[in-house]
Amino acid sequence: MIGLDLGGTAIKAGLCRLNGELIGKWEGPTEAAKGTDQIVSNMVAYAEELLKQHQMSWNELKGIGVGVAGFVDHDAGMIKTSPNLGIERVPIRQLLEERVNLPVSIDNDANAAALGEAWAGAGTGKKQVVCYTLGTGVGGGIIADGRIYRGKGYAGELGHLQIVPDLEAVSCRCGQKGCLETVSSATGIKRMAIEAVERGEQSELQFIEKEELSAKHVFDAARGGDKTALRIVKRAAYYLGKSMALISVVLHPERFIVGGGVSLAGDVLFEPLRKSYEEHVLNVFEGSADIVPAVLGNDAGMIGASLLTDIK
Amino acid sequence: MIGLDLGGTAIKAGLCRLNGELIGKWEGPTEAAKGTDQIVSNMVAYAEELLKQHQMSWNELKGIGVGVAGFVDHDAGMIKTSPNLGIERVPIRQLLEERVNLPVSIDNDANAAALGEAWAGAGTGKKQVVCYTLGTGVGGGIIADGRIYRGKGYAGELGHLQIVPDLEAVSCRCGQKGCLETVSSATGIKRMAIEAVERGEQSELQFIEKEELSAKHVFDAARGGDKTALRIVKRAAYYLGKSMALISVVLHPERFIVGGGVSLAGDVLFEPLRKSYEEHVLNVFEGSADIVPAVLGNDAGMIGASLLTDIK
Repeated sequence: MIGLDLGGTAIKAGLCRLNGELIGKWEGPTEAAKGTDQIVSNMVAYAEELLKQHQMSWNELKGIGVGVAGFVDHDAGMIKTSPNLGIERVPIRQLLEERVNLPVSIDNDANAAALGEAWAGAGTGKKQVVCYTLGTGVGGGIIADGRIYRGKGYAGELGHLQIVPDLEAVSCRCGQKGCLETVSSATGIKRMAIEAVERGEQSELQFIEKEELSAKHVFDAARGGDKTALRIVKRAAYYLGKSMALISVVLHPERFIVGGGVSLAGDVLFEPLRKSYEEHVLNVFEGSADIVPAVLGNDAGMIGASLLTDIK
Repeated sequence: MIGLDLGGTAIKAGLCRLNGELIGKWEGPTEAAKGTDQIVSNMVAYAEELLKQHQMSWNELKGIGVGVAGFVDHDAGMIKTSPNLGIERVPIRQLLEERVNLPVSIDNDANAAALGEAWAGAGTGKKQVVCYTLGTGVGGGIIADGRIYRGKGYAGELGHLQIVPDLEAVSCRCGQKGCLETVSSATGIKRMAIEAVERGEQSELQFIEKEELSAKHVFDAARGGDKTALRIVKRAAYYLGKSMALISVVLHPERFIVGGGVSLAGDVLFEPLRKSYEEHVLNVFEGSADIVPAVLGNDAGMIGASLLTDIK
């Protein structure tokens, strides 16, 4: 199977065995500004390059899966809207199927990454898994009985759980206030750091140019014992753990997987995260789900996209 | 199929066609205090009475489903604990199967009621449905792709979503604070009414004996324009609607069904409920799920239990 991770700047193509094992990958620019035809041609070209490298032909593939940065109608095979790609209402499945004569399946990138981690990464062997991707925003994916759960189409938008109490909530890009994304994404962590510096808090974060300040700086400072940085990381972890307690009451998963750039922070994030979860989770659920970091890194999207071919 | 609704005081037995249509029912005391053997004997006896009335025999049945007031392990066919029945670790499926020589399937009563409403009641034709049962507590049931979603076992405990902000949260019987159940159940509504009377608020609720005061009194007074009663009903509806907005982000259902005694209140509850939902729901989901009252009343449990035979 080939999995394509279709992002705003790059298309990643991965060649996978049926169990999700990645045996080769290739990457090239999306060239989104040149429009839909160019995007589709690039997807086909990068997949073809991958096949060539492995001396394979199209008809040896079972299918192609695509994870898209945007809102996707899985059943219709349609990109409804993708701000990152600057396209709307594109019947991407049909366009690809016409070019490669193979079954194509599509989903959004967070669901694809969740499927990858659940089947071939940190969730292997588990059937009830909830994945968070902490990056610029907070993405989510629900694996229910081993498959992606989409509900009426957009289930698993975990970044937009309104979890921060009104009195301390700030606006989210979605139009709501107090979304998880405002505190637990890289963007949210950076915002809290800039606010702390501007308030004049004594912290080593003061010595970093405001434009340069990133979530990584905050985690590094927290690891060194910087009190301001520790407070910010704890706040990000607190609301993430509280959201997991809420999700547990609804879905009772076996495992939470946390991926994305922010998850690379390690124990400084995961320790307060697990503490917050245990503090908030309903008694009957205590200890019933574990919280683990993702293991596939940037490959999760392609691997999961390829698994869409088989698992959907 | 026969569906049995096993409650603390009564066992309701319903004879259903394969589509969930109820063609006869019978009810008798649970006699829980006499222990497991008596409970099982009563279940068999009431089912037998029902068959006799319809001149049917056991071997004409496809199976028996049981909805239990308590924590149930569906896969093991086991009642783990039921405070209402005063029993623990009872392998009810095996005990029944030995007596009737038919396949038996069990679940908790809220899941059974949700399945009944989703397939043969207010959710007919919908595949992604979330049900709330507002009674003494708040129960929940998730229908995902047409089937009950259980996760690792106890998914759908919607009454224990911590939705009330810390500053105004009161303790719940589950040990947490601020659960939905503390404000949107009959018990929660009654509590708020008693507190208002004790504070000396000018309200017609003052003229009802505290011991007699019920959620129904509050709804009646609200319908008559009583300001205190209206405020209490709005508060119950507000948090229920807010919880639905949270659930929408996670599950993106097509429909919310609200059952249980409290749901009989009608527009005085459903109008502020829909308003709160629309106010809180993420833009992309707006208008995507409707909120409707349950239609099967007390029959939902038996009908849903019978459907467990076929749908699980």
